[in-house]
Amino acid sequence: MTEPHLINLTRYDSGALTPFCDELAPEEPLEIRVEGQSVAVVMRTPGHDRELAAGFLLTEGIIKTAKDLFDLTTCVSGAAGKGNSVDAGLANPGSFDLTKLSRHVFTSASCGVCSKTSVDAVLRRHKPLHDHVRVTPEILLSLPRRLSRKQETFRRTGGLHACALFDLKGKLLAVREDVGRHNAMDKLIGWALLEKKLPLDAHVVLLSGRASFEMMQKSYAAGIPIVAAISAPSSLAVDFARESGQTLAGFIRGKSMNLYAGAARIANGKH
Amino acid sequence: MTEPHLINLTRYDSGALTPFCDELAPEEPLEIRVEGQSVAVVMRTPGHDRELAAGFLLTEGIIKTAKDLFDLTTCVSGAAGKGNSVDAGLANPGSFDLTKLSRHVFTSASCGVCSKTSVDAVLRRHKPLHDHVRVTPEILLSLPRRLSRKQETFRRTGGLHACALFDLKGKLLAVREDVGRHNAMDKLIGWALLEKKLPLDAHVVLLSGRASFEMMQKSYAAGIPIVAAISAPSSLAVDFARESGQTLAGFIRGKSMNLYAGAARIANGKH
Repeated sequence: MTEPHLINLTRYDSGALTPFCDELAPEEPLEIRVEGQSVAVVMRTPGHDRELAAGFLLTEGIIKTAKDLFDLTTCVSGAAGKGNSVDAGLANPGSFDLTKLSRHVFTSASCGVCSKTSVDAVLRRHKPLHDHVRVTPEILLSLPRRLSRKQETFRRTGGLHACALFDLKGKLLAVREDVGRHNAMDKLIGWALLEKKLPLDAHVVLLSGRASFEMMQKSYAAGIPIVAAISAPSSLAVDFARESGQTLAGFIRGKSMNLYAGAARIANGKH
Repeated sequence: MTEPHLINLTRYDSGALTPFCDELAPEEPLEIRVEGQSVAVVMRTPGHDRELAAGFLLTEGIIKTAKDLFDLTTCVSGAAGKGNSVDAGLANPGSFDLTKLSRHVFTSASCGVCSKTSVDAVLRRHKPLHDHVRVTPEILLSLPRRLSRKQETFRRTGGLHACALFDLKGKLLAVREDVGRHNAMDKLIGWALLEKKLPLDAHVVLLSGRASFEMMQKSYAAGIPIVAAISAPSSLAVDFARESGQTLAGFIRGKSMNLYAGAARIANGKH
Protein backbone atom coordinates (compact mmCIF):
# COMPACT_ATOMS: atom_id res chain seq x y z
CA MET A 1 0.00 0.00 0.00
CA THR A 2 1.07 3.53 -0.76
CA GLU A 3 2.62 5.62 1.98
CA PRO A 4 0.55 8.73 2.72
CA HIS A 5 2.02 12.14 3.18
CA LEU A 6 1.81 13.88 6.57
CA ILE A 7 1.08 17.59 6.56
CA ASN A 8 0.52 20.41 9.06
CA LEU A 9 -2.62 22.46 8.54
CA THR A 10 -5.12 24.67 10.35
CA ARG A 11 -8.41 23.10 11.33
CA TYR A 12 -11.47 25.32 11.57
CA ASP A 13 -14.35 24.00 13.68
CA SER A 14 -17.33 26.03 14.95
CA GLY A 15 -15.39 29.30 15.12
CA ALA A 16 -12.13 27.96 16.54
CA LEU A 17 -8.86 27.55 14.65
CA THR A 18 -6.43 24.87 15.84
CA PRO A 19 -3.21 23.41 14.45
CA PHE A 20 -3.81 19.95 13.03
CA CYS A 21 -1.89 17.21 11.26
CA ASP A 22 -3.42 15.13 8.51
CA GLU A 23 -2.47 12.52 5.93
CA LEU A 24 -2.80 13.32 2.25
CA ALA A 25 -2.73 11.18 -0.84
CA PRO A 26 0.71 11.68 -2.42
CA GLU A 27 0.78 13.06 -5.97
CA GLU A 28 3.87 13.54 -8.16
CA PRO A 29 4.58 13.60 -11.89
CA LEU A 30 5.89 10.49 -13.64
CA GLU A 31 7.44 10.70 -17.07
CA ILE A 32 6.94 7.65 -19.24
CA ARG A 33 9.54 7.18 -21.98
CA VAL A 34 9.86 4.67 -24.79
CA GLU A 35 13.37 4.08 -26.09
CA GLY A 36 14.42 7.32 -24.43
CA GLN A 37 11.63 9.35 -26.02
CA SER A 38 9.11 11.04 -23.71
CA VAL A 39 5.58 9.88 -24.51
CA ALA A 40 3.64 11.01 -21.42
CA VAL A 41 3.80 12.78 -18.11
CA VAL A 42 1.11 11.59 -15.75
CA MET A 43 0.32 12.98 -12.29
CA ARG A 44 0.29 9.88 -10.14
CA THR A 45 0.69 8.53 -6.62
CA PRO A 46 4.30 7.28 -6.38
CA GLY A 47 4.72 3.53 -6.09
CA HIS A 48 4.26 0.69 -8.60
CA ASP A 49 5.74 2.98 -11.24
CA ARG A 50 7.02 0.20 -13.50
CA GLU A 51 3.55 -1.34 -13.42
CA LEU A 52 2.02 2.03 -14.26
CA ALA A 53 4.33 2.45 -17.25
CA ALA A 54 3.74 -1.14 -18.43
CA GLY A 55 -0.03 -0.81 -18.07
CA PHE A 56 -0.06 2.56 -19.83
CA LEU A 57 1.92 1.16 -22.76
CA LEU A 58 -0.46 -1.77 -23.08
CA THR A 59 -3.73 0.11 -22.67
CA GLU A 60 -2.57 2.84 -25.07
CA GLY A 61 -1.71 0.22 -27.68
CA ILE A 62 2.08 0.76 -27.74
CA ILE A 63 2.73 -2.86 -26.74
CA LYS A 64 0.42 -5.86 -27.18
CA THR A 65 1.96 -8.49 -24.91
CA ALA A 66 4.66 -8.79 -22.24
CA LYS A 67 6.99 -10.10 -24.97
CA ASP A 68 6.97 -6.70 -26.70
CA LEU A 69 8.64 -5.24 -23.62
CA PHE A 70 12.39 -5.74 -23.36
CA ASP A 71 12.92 -3.94 -20.06
CA LEU A 72 11.71 -1.13 -17.80
CA THR A 73 14.24 1.18 -16.18
CA THR A 74 13.45 3.61 -13.39
CA CYS A 75 15.55 6.71 -14.07
CA VAL A 76 16.80 9.11 -11.45
CA SER A 77 16.18 12.26 -13.44
CA GLY A 78 17.37 15.83 -12.92
CA ALA A 79 18.22 17.52 -9.67
CA ALA A 80 15.27 16.05 -7.80
CA GLY A 81 16.74 12.58 -8.10
CA LYS A 82 13.52 10.95 -7.09
CA GLY A 83 13.15 8.45 -9.89
CA ASN A 84 10.13 10.12 -11.44
CA SER A 85 10.83 8.65 -14.85
CA VAL A 86 10.48 5.15 -16.31
CA ASP A 87 12.06 4.22 -19.63
CA ALA A 88 10.68 1.26 -21.56
CA GLY A 89 12.95 -0.67 -23.88
CA LEU A 90 11.09 -2.55 -26.60
CA ALA A 91 11.85 -6.03 -27.92
CA ASN A 92 11.60 -4.58 -31.40
CA PRO A 93 12.49 -0.87 -31.15
CA GLY A 94 12.16 -0.42 -34.92
CA SER A 95 8.41 -1.05 -34.64
CA PHE A 96 7.80 1.97 -32.41
CA ASP A 97 6.16 4.88 -34.14
CA LEU A 98 5.18 7.85 -31.98
CA THR A 99 2.69 9.06 -34.57
CA LYS A 100 0.70 5.83 -34.20
CA LEU A 101 -0.17 6.63 -30.61
CA SER A 102 -3.87 7.27 -30.13
CA ARG A 103 -2.85 10.09 -27.83
CA HIS A 104 0.18 11.22 -25.95
CA VAL A 105 1.19 13.92 -23.64
CA PHE A 106 4.26 16.07 -24.12
CA THR A 107 6.18 18.25 -21.74
CA SER A 108 8.29 21.10 -22.85
CA ALA A 109 10.49 20.65 -19.78
CA SER A 110 13.64 18.93 -20.91
CA CYS A 111 15.30 18.92 -17.49
CA GLY A 112 13.39 15.93 -16.14
CA VAL A 113 10.30 15.93 -14.07
CA CYS A 114 9.71 16.51 -10.40
CA SER A 115 7.09 18.15 -8.25
CA LYS A 116 9.15 21.31 -7.83
CA THR A 117 9.69 21.85 -11.57
CA SER A 118 6.00 21.12 -12.25
CA VAL A 119 4.95 23.81 -9.80
CA ASP A 120 7.60 26.31 -10.94
CA ALA A 121 6.73 25.88 -14.62
CA VAL A 122 3.13 26.89 -13.93
CA LEU A 123 4.02 29.81 -11.66
CA ARG A 124 6.40 31.22 -14.27
CA ARG A 125 3.71 31.15 -16.93
CA HIS A 126 1.13 33.36 -15.18
CA LYS A 127 0.94 36.60 -13.19
CA PRO A 128 1.17 36.39 -9.37
CA LEU A 129 -2.07 36.65 -7.39
CA HIS A 130 -3.40 39.68 -5.60
CA ASP A 131 -3.23 39.22 -1.87
CA HIS A 132 -5.82 41.56 -0.44
CA VAL A 133 -9.01 39.51 -0.64
CA ARG A 134 -10.70 38.09 2.45
CA VAL A 135 -13.62 35.72 2.96
CA THR A 136 -15.32 34.78 6.22
CA PRO A 137 -15.30 31.16 7.39
CA GLU A 138 -19.11 31.22 7.56
CA ILE A 139 -19.34 32.04 3.85
CA LEU A 140 -16.83 29.34 2.91
CA LEU A 141 -18.77 26.76 4.93
CA SER A 142 -22.03 27.77 3.23
CA LEU A 143 -20.77 27.16 -0.32
CA PRO A 144 -21.54 23.42 -0.62
CA ARG A 145 -25.16 24.13 0.37
CA ARG A 146 -25.37 26.95 -2.18
CA LEU A 147 -23.94 24.67 -4.88
CA SER A 148 -26.19 21.71 -4.13
CA ARG A 149 -29.27 23.86 -4.67
CA LYS A 150 -28.10 24.35 -8.27
CA GLN A 151 -26.39 21.10 -9.14
CA GLU A 152 -29.36 19.35 -10.73
CA THR A 153 -27.74 16.90 -13.11
CA PHE A 154 -25.47 15.55 -10.41
CA ARG A 155 -28.42 14.80 -8.18
CA ARG A 156 -30.08 12.86 -11.00
CA THR A 157 -27.13 10.88 -12.34
CA GLY A 158 -24.52 10.82 -9.60
CA GLY A 159 -21.93 10.90 -12.35
CA LEU A 160 -20.69 14.47 -12.70
CA HIS A 161 -18.07 16.73 -11.21
CA ALA A 162 -18.97 20.35 -10.60
CA CYS A 163 -17.00 23.58 -10.28
CA ALA A 164 -18.82 26.64 -8.96
CA LEU A 165 -17.67 30.25 -8.92
CA PHE A 166 -18.69 32.56 -6.05
CA ASP A 167 -17.92 36.14 -5.15
CA LEU A 168 -16.51 36.93 -1.70
CA LYS A 169 -20.01 37.42 -0.27
CA GLY A 170 -20.94 33.88 -1.31
CA LYS A 171 -23.05 34.83 -4.31
CA LEU A 172 -23.08 32.00 -6.86
CA LEU A 173 -21.99 33.37 -10.26
CA ALA A 174 -21.72 30.22 -12.41
CA VAL A 175 -21.66 26.41 -12.14
CA ARG A 176 -20.32 23.97 -14.71
CA GLU A 177 -20.65 20.18 -14.57
CA ASP A 178 -18.80 17.50 -16.49
CA VAL A 179 -17.82 13.82 -16.36
CA GLY A 180 -14.24 15.12 -16.15
CA ARG A 181 -13.19 17.37 -13.30
CA HIS A 182 -10.69 19.25 -15.47
CA ASN A 183 -13.39 19.93 -18.04
CA ALA A 184 -15.74 21.36 -15.40
CA MET A 185 -12.97 23.77 -14.37
CA ASP A 186 -12.05 24.66 -17.96
CA LYS A 187 -15.72 25.34 -18.78
CA LEU A 188 -16.07 27.62 -15.76
CA ILE A 189 -12.90 29.53 -16.59
CA GLY A 190 -13.81 29.62 -20.28
CA TRP A 191 -17.15 31.16 -19.32
CA ALA A 192 -15.35 33.88 -17.36
CA LEU A 193 -12.92 34.47 -20.25
CA LEU A 194 -15.69 34.82 -22.84
CA GLU A 195 -17.64 37.09 -20.44
CA LYS A 196 -14.50 39.26 -20.02
CA LYS A 197 -14.41 38.64 -16.28
CA LEU A 198 -10.76 37.55 -15.99
CA PRO A 199 -8.79 37.65 -13.78
CA LEU A 200 -11.09 36.15 -11.14
CA ASP A 201 -9.09 37.85 -8.40
CA ALA A 202 -11.95 38.46 -5.94
CA HIS A 203 -13.54 35.04 -6.24
CA VAL A 204 -13.75 31.59 -4.69
CA VAL A 205 -14.03 28.37 -6.70
CA LEU A 206 -15.72 25.39 -5.08
CA LEU A 207 -14.87 21.87 -6.29
CA SER A 208 -17.46 19.13 -5.76
CA GLY A 209 -14.70 16.56 -5.29
CA ARG A 210 -10.98 16.48 -4.64
CA ALA A 211 -8.31 19.08 -5.32
CA SER A 212 -5.40 17.88 -7.47
CA PHE A 213 -2.33 19.64 -8.86
CA GLU A 214 -4.05 20.21 -12.18
CA MET A 215 -7.13 21.77 -10.56
CA MET A 216 -4.89 24.19 -8.65
CA GLN A 217 -2.91 24.96 -11.80
CA LYS A 218 -6.06 25.79 -13.75
CA SER A 219 -7.54 27.96 -11.00
CA TYR A 220 -4.23 29.82 -10.72
CA ALA A 221 -4.18 30.47 -14.47
CA ALA A 222 -7.53 32.28 -14.02
CA GLY A 223 -6.19 34.29 -11.05
CA ILE A 224 -8.48 32.63 -8.48
CA PRO A 225 -7.07 33.28 -4.97
CA ILE A 226 -9.28 30.86 -2.99
CA VAL A 227 -10.00 27.21 -3.81
CA ALA A 228 -12.44 25.26 -1.64
CA ALA A 229 -12.91 21.51 -2.06
CA ILE A 230 -15.64 19.38 -0.54
CA SER A 231 -13.23 16.46 -0.40
CA ALA A 232 -9.47 15.97 0.12
CA PRO A 233 -6.57 17.68 -1.65
CA SER A 234 -3.53 15.77 -2.88
CA SER A 235 -0.06 16.48 -1.48
CA LEU A 236 0.93 18.33 -4.66
CA ALA A 237 -2.22 20.47 -4.59
CA VAL A 238 -1.13 21.69 -1.15
CA ASP A 239 2.48 22.23 -2.29
CA PHE A 240 1.17 24.20 -5.25
CA ALA A 241 -1.11 26.42 -3.15
CA ARG A 242 1.71 27.20 -0.70
CA GLU A 243 4.01 28.23 -3.58
CA SER A 244 1.37 30.12 -5.57
CA GLY A 245 0.00 31.97 -2.54
CA GLN A 246 -3.50 30.54 -3.00
CA THR A 247 -5.82 29.70 -0.15
CA LEU A 248 -6.78 26.03 -0.17
CA ALA A 249 -9.60 24.71 2.01
CA GLY A 250 -10.70 21.07 2.00
CA PHE A 251 -13.18 18.72 3.67
CA ILE A 252 -15.75 21.51 3.92
CA ARG A 253 -18.46 19.75 5.88
CA GLY A 254 -21.05 21.20 8.22
CA LYS A 255 -19.29 23.58 10.59
CA SER A 256 -15.73 22.48 9.96
CA MET A 257 -13.03 22.55 7.30
CA ASN A 258 -9.29 22.10 6.87
CA LEU A 259 -7.15 25.08 5.79
CA TYR A 260 -4.09 23.74 3.96
CA ALA A 261 -2.65 27.01 2.69
CA GLY A 262 -3.29 30.76 2.80
CA ALA A 263 -5.33 30.77 6.03
CA ALA A 264 -4.65 34.55 6.27
CA ARG A 265 -7.40 35.14 3.69
CA ILE A 266 -10.00 33.71 6.06
CA ALA A 267 -11.21 36.88 7.80
CA ASN A 268 -10.52 36.75 11.56
CA GLY A 269 -8.34 33.74 10.89
CA LYS A 270 -5.13 33.34 12.88
CA HIS A 271 -2.41 31.19 11.42
CA MET B 1 -27.70 22.46 -16.87
CA THR B 2 -26.64 19.48 -18.94
CA GLU B 3 -29.28 17.12 -20.30
CA PRO B 4 -28.83 13.61 -18.92
CA HIS B 5 -29.02 10.53 -21.05
CA LEU B 6 -31.83 7.98 -20.49
CA ILE B 7 -30.92 4.32 -20.73
CA ASN B 8 -32.61 0.92 -20.32
CA LEU B 9 -30.89 -1.48 -17.99
CA THR B 10 -31.49 -4.48 -15.75
CA ARG B 11 -31.80 -3.85 -12.04
CA TYR B 12 -30.78 -6.60 -9.63
CA ASP B 13 -32.23 -6.41 -6.13
CA SER B 14 -32.24 -9.20 -3.52
CA GLY B 15 -32.31 -12.01 -6.10
CA ALA B 16 -34.79 -10.45 -8.53
CA LEU B 17 -33.99 -8.99 -11.95
CA THR B 18 -36.29 -6.29 -13.34
CA PRO B 19 -36.12 -3.95 -16.32
CA PHE B 20 -35.27 -0.42 -15.25
CA CYS B 21 -34.65 2.97 -16.79
CA ASP B 22 -32.01 5.35 -15.46
CA GLU B 23 -30.32 8.64 -16.29
CA LEU B 24 -26.61 8.71 -16.99
CA ALA B 25 -24.10 11.51 -17.24
CA PRO B 26 -23.47 12.07 -20.97
CA GLU B 27 -19.86 11.62 -22.16
CA GLU B 28 -18.56 12.28 -25.68
CA PRO B 29 -15.22 13.25 -27.22
CA LEU B 30 -14.50 16.89 -28.08
CA GLU B 31 -11.65 17.81 -30.37
CA ILE B 32 -10.03 21.17 -29.64
CA ARG B 33 -8.23 22.75 -32.59
CA VAL B 34 -6.14 25.90 -32.90
CA GLU B 35 -5.99 27.44 -36.37
CA GLY B 36 -7.23 24.14 -37.77
CA GLN B 37 -4.58 22.08 -35.99
CA SER B 38 -5.77 19.43 -33.52
CA VAL B 39 -4.27 20.06 -30.06
CA ALA B 40 -6.44 17.86 -27.84
CA VAL B 41 -9.28 15.42 -27.67
CA VAL B 42 -10.98 15.45 -24.30
CA MET B 43 -13.77 13.15 -23.12
CA ARG B 44 -16.40 15.57 -21.87
CA THR B 45 -20.08 16.07 -21.13
CA PRO B 46 -21.53 17.88 -24.19
CA GLY B 47 -22.59 21.46 -23.58
CA HIS B 48 -20.64 24.68 -23.03
CA ASP B 49 -18.12 23.42 -25.58
CA ARG B 50 -16.87 26.84 -26.62
CA GLU B 51 -16.26 27.65 -22.95
CA LEU B 52 -14.43 24.36 -22.51
CA ALA B 53 -12.17 25.14 -25.47
CA ALA B 54 -11.56 28.72 -24.29
CA GLY B 55 -10.80 27.60 -20.73
CA PHE B 56 -8.52 24.82 -21.93
CA LEU B 57 -6.55 27.24 -24.12
CA LEU B 58 -6.15 29.66 -21.22
CA THR B 59 -5.28 27.15 -18.50
CA GLU B 60 -2.83 25.35 -20.81
CA GLY B 61 -1.11 28.64 -21.57
CA ILE B 62 -1.97 28.87 -25.29
CA ILE B 63 -3.75 32.21 -24.79
CA LYS B 64 -3.28 34.70 -21.99
CA THR B 65 -6.35 36.95 -22.28
CA ALA B 66 -9.65 37.11 -24.15
CA LYS B 67 -7.96 39.44 -26.65
CA ASP B 68 -5.68 36.64 -27.84
CA LEU B 69 -8.76 34.79 -29.08
CA PHE B 70 -10.13 35.93 -32.44
CA ASP B 71 -13.06 33.51 -32.65
CA LEU B 72 -14.33 30.06 -31.68
CA THR B 73 -16.11 27.94 -34.26
CA THR B 74 -18.07 24.78 -33.50
CA CYS B 75 -17.42 22.41 -36.38
CA VAL B 76 -19.80 19.74 -37.55
CA SER B 77 -17.19 17.10 -38.22
CA GLY B 78 -17.40 13.82 -40.11
CA ALA B 79 -20.42 11.60 -40.56
CA ALA B 80 -21.57 11.95 -36.95
CA GLY B 81 -22.35 15.61 -37.54
CA LYS B 82 -22.69 16.32 -33.87
CA GLY B 83 -20.40 19.29 -33.57
CA ASN B 84 -17.80 17.50 -31.49
CA SER B 85 -15.04 19.86 -32.56
CA VAL B 86 -14.22 23.49 -31.71
CA ASP B 87 -11.69 25.48 -33.73
CA ALA B 88 -10.05 28.51 -32.13
CA GLY B 89 -8.84 31.34 -34.32
CA LEU B 90 -6.12 33.44 -32.72
CA ALA B 91 -5.73 37.21 -32.88
CA ASN B 92 -2.10 36.63 -33.78
CA PRO B 93 -1.89 33.21 -35.47
CA GLY B 94 1.83 33.61 -36.08
CA SER B 95 2.47 33.47 -32.33
CA PHE B 96 1.09 29.95 -32.00
CA ASP B 97 3.73 27.29 -31.52
CA LEU B 98 2.51 23.76 -30.85
CA THR B 99 5.86 22.79 -29.37
CA LYS B 100 5.45 25.38 -26.62
CA LEU B 101 2.45 23.56 -25.20
CA SER B 102 3.14 22.09 -21.78
CA ARG B 103 1.21 19.07 -22.93
CA HIS B 104 -1.18 18.13 -25.62
CA VAL B 105 -3.12 15.16 -26.73
CA PHE B 106 -3.12 13.85 -30.27
CA THR B 107 -5.46 11.53 -32.06
CA SER B 108 -4.44 9.51 -35.03
CA ALA B 109 -8.06 9.59 -36.27
CA SER B 110 -8.20 12.10 -39.09
CA CYS B 111 -11.87 11.52 -39.87
CA GLY B 112 -13.25 13.68 -37.10
CA VAL B 113 -14.31 12.61 -33.66
CA CYS B 114 -17.52 11.07 -32.43
CA SER B 115 -18.51 8.49 -29.86
CA LYS B 116 -18.88 5.77 -32.48
CA THR B 117 -15.41 6.28 -33.97
CA SER B 118 -13.87 6.44 -30.47
CA VAL B 119 -15.40 3.08 -29.57
CA ASP B 120 -14.59 1.47 -32.93
CA ALA B 121 -10.97 2.63 -32.83
CA VAL B 122 -10.42 0.83 -29.53
CA LEU B 123 -12.27 -2.33 -30.57
CA ARG B 124 -10.20 -2.60 -33.75
CA ARG B 125 -6.97 -2.39 -31.79
CA HIS B 126 -7.49 -5.39 -29.50
CA LYS B 127 -8.71 -9.01 -29.66
CA PRO B 128 -12.42 -9.69 -28.97
CA LEU B 129 -13.35 -11.01 -25.54
CA HIS B 130 -14.13 -14.59 -24.59
CA ASP B 131 -17.79 -15.00 -23.81
CA HIS B 132 -18.00 -18.09 -21.61
CA VAL B 133 -17.30 -16.66 -18.15
CA ARG B 134 -20.01 -16.37 -15.51
CA VAL B 135 -20.14 -14.80 -12.06
CA THR B 136 -22.91 -15.02 -9.48
CA PRO B 137 -24.69 -11.84 -8.35
CA GLU B 138 -23.80 -12.67 -4.74
CA ILE B 139 -20.10 -12.59 -5.56
CA LEU B 140 -20.39 -9.31 -7.49
CA LEU B 141 -22.25 -7.71 -4.57
CA SER B 142 -19.57 -8.86 -2.12
CA LEU B 143 -16.67 -7.19 -3.97
CA PRO B 144 -16.88 -3.69 -2.40
CA ARG B 145 -16.68 -5.29 1.06
CA ARG B 146 -13.70 -7.40 0.02
CA LEU B 147 -11.97 -4.31 -1.40
CA SER B 148 -12.62 -2.09 1.61
CA ARG B 149 -10.85 -4.59 3.88
CA LYS B 150 -7.70 -3.95 1.83
CA GLN B 151 -7.96 -0.32 0.81
CA GLU B 152 -5.97 1.15 3.65
CA THR B 153 -4.66 4.39 2.18
CA PHE B 154 -8.09 5.43 1.00
CA ARG B 155 -9.49 5.02 4.48
CA ARG B 156 -6.75 7.25 5.88
CA THR B 157 -6.66 10.01 3.27
CA GLY B 158 -10.00 9.86 1.43
CA GLY B 159 -8.07 10.97 -1.63
CA LEU B 160 -7.41 7.91 -3.75
CA HIS B 161 -9.10 5.89 -6.44
CA ALA B 162 -8.75 2.11 -6.34
CA CYS B 163 -8.97 -0.66 -8.90
CA ALA B 164 -9.17 -4.23 -7.63
CA LEU B 165 -8.84 -7.46 -9.58
CA PHE B 166 -10.82 -10.54 -8.54
CA ASP B 167 -11.22 -14.02 -9.94
CA LEU B 168 -14.70 -15.37 -10.69
CA LYS B 169 -15.01 -16.82 -7.18
CA GLY B 170 -14.44 -13.37 -5.68
CA LYS B 171 -10.84 -13.95 -4.58
CA LEU B 172 -8.96 -10.64 -4.45
CA LEU B 173 -5.80 -10.91 -6.57
CA ALA B 174 -4.44 -7.34 -6.53
CA VAL B 175 -5.40 -3.77 -5.60
CA ARG B 176 -3.82 -0.57 -6.87
CA GLU B 177 -4.56 2.93 -5.59
CA ASP B 178 -3.77 6.30 -7.13
CA VAL B 179 -4.85 9.95 -7.13
CA GLY B 180 -5.78 9.32 -10.79
CA ARG B 181 -8.34 6.66 -11.65
CA HIS B 182 -6.63 5.90 -14.97
CA ASN B 183 -3.34 5.37 -13.18
CA ALA B 184 -4.91 2.93 -10.70
CA MET B 185 -6.20 0.89 -13.67
CA ASP B 186 -2.89 1.10 -15.56
CA LYS B 187 -0.99 -0.05 -12.44
CA LEU B 188 -3.31 -3.01 -11.98
CA ILE B 189 -3.04 -4.04 -15.63
CA GLY B 190 0.70 -3.40 -15.63
CA TRP B 191 1.01 -5.71 -12.63
CA ALA B 192 -0.83 -8.44 -14.57
CA LEU B 193 1.35 -7.83 -17.63
CA LEU B 194 4.61 -8.07 -15.68
CA GLU B 195 3.32 -11.19 -13.86
CA LYS B 196 2.47 -12.74 -17.26
CA LYS B 197 -1.22 -13.05 -16.35
CA LEU B 198 -2.69 -11.41 -19.47
CA PRO B 199 -5.30 -11.66 -20.86
CA LEU B 200 -7.43 -11.30 -17.73
CA ASP B 201 -10.25 -13.22 -19.41
CA ALA B 202 -11.67 -14.93 -16.31
CA HIS B 203 -11.60 -11.91 -14.04
CA VAL B 204 -13.64 -9.04 -12.65
CA VAL B 205 -12.27 -5.54 -12.06
CA LEU B 206 -13.89 -3.40 -9.36
CA LEU B 207 -13.65 0.40 -9.59
CA SER B 208 -13.97 2.39 -6.37
CA GLY B 209 -15.66 5.25 -8.23
CA ARG B 210 -17.28 5.86 -11.58
CA ALA B 211 -16.88 4.04 -14.89
CA SER B 212 -15.88 6.24 -17.83
CA PHE B 213 -15.06 5.49 -21.47
CA GLU B 214 -11.36 5.42 -20.72
CA MET B 215 -11.75 2.97 -17.83
CA MET B 216 -13.72 0.62 -20.10
CA GLN B 217 -11.15 1.03 -22.87
CA LYS B 218 -8.30 0.12 -20.55
CA SER B 219 -10.08 -2.90 -19.05
CA TYR B 220 -10.89 -4.12 -22.57
CA ALA B 221 -7.26 -3.82 -23.62
CA ALA B 222 -6.42 -6.27 -20.81
CA GLY B 223 -9.21 -8.65 -21.88
CA ILE B 224 -11.31 -8.13 -18.74
CA PRO B 225 -14.90 -9.32 -19.43
CA ILE B 226 -16.61 -7.93 -16.31
CA VAL B 227 -16.32 -4.38 -14.93
CA ALA B 228 -18.07 -3.51 -11.66
CA ALA B 229 -18.26 0.08 -10.40
CA ILE B 230 -19.34 1.23 -6.97
CA SER B 231 -20.68 4.44 -8.50
CA ALA B 232 -22.28 5.47 -11.81
CA PRO B 233 -21.10 4.81 -15.37
CA SER B 234 -21.12 7.48 -18.05
CA SER B 235 -23.24 7.12 -21.19
CA LEU B 236 -20.18 6.32 -23.28
CA ALA B 237 -18.97 3.67 -20.81
CA VAL B 238 -22.29 1.89 -21.37
CA ASP B 239 -22.10 2.31 -25.16
CA PHE B 240 -18.58 0.92 -25.07
CA ALA B 241 -19.53 -2.13 -22.97
CA ARG B 242 -22.44 -2.95 -25.27
CA GLU B 243 -20.19 -2.79 -28.34
CA SER B 244 -17.24 -4.61 -26.77
CA GLY B 245 -19.36 -7.35 -25.23
CA GLN B 246 -18.24 -6.53 -21.69
CA THR B 247 -20.45 -6.86 -18.65
CA LEU B 248 -20.86 -3.54 -16.86
CA ALA B 249 -22.39 -3.34 -13.38
CA GLY B 250 -22.76 -0.08 -11.47
CA PHE B 251 -24.10 1.30 -8.19
CA ILE B 252 -23.11 -1.90 -6.39
CA ARG B 253 -24.55 -1.20 -2.96
CA GLY B 254 -25.80 -3.64 -0.34
CA LYS B 255 -28.03 -6.18 -2.05
CA SER B 256 -28.64 -4.30 -5.28
CA MET B 257 -26.86 -3.19 -8.44
CA ASN B 258 -27.56 -1.98 -11.96
CA LEU B 259 -26.55 -4.15 -14.93
CA TYR B 260 -25.94 -1.87 -17.91
CA ALA B 261 -24.51 -4.40 -20.36
CA GLY B 262 -23.72 -8.11 -20.63
CA ALA B 263 -26.23 -9.28 -18.00
CA ALA B 264 -25.94 -12.80 -19.51
CA ARG B 265 -22.65 -13.25 -17.63
CA ILE B 266 -24.42 -12.95 -14.29
CA ALA B 267 -25.16 -16.60 -13.52
CA ASN B 268 -28.92 -17.26 -13.32
CA GLY B 269 -29.45 -13.82 -14.75
CA LYS B 270 -32.29 -13.29 -17.22
CA HIS B 271 -32.02 -10.45 -19.65
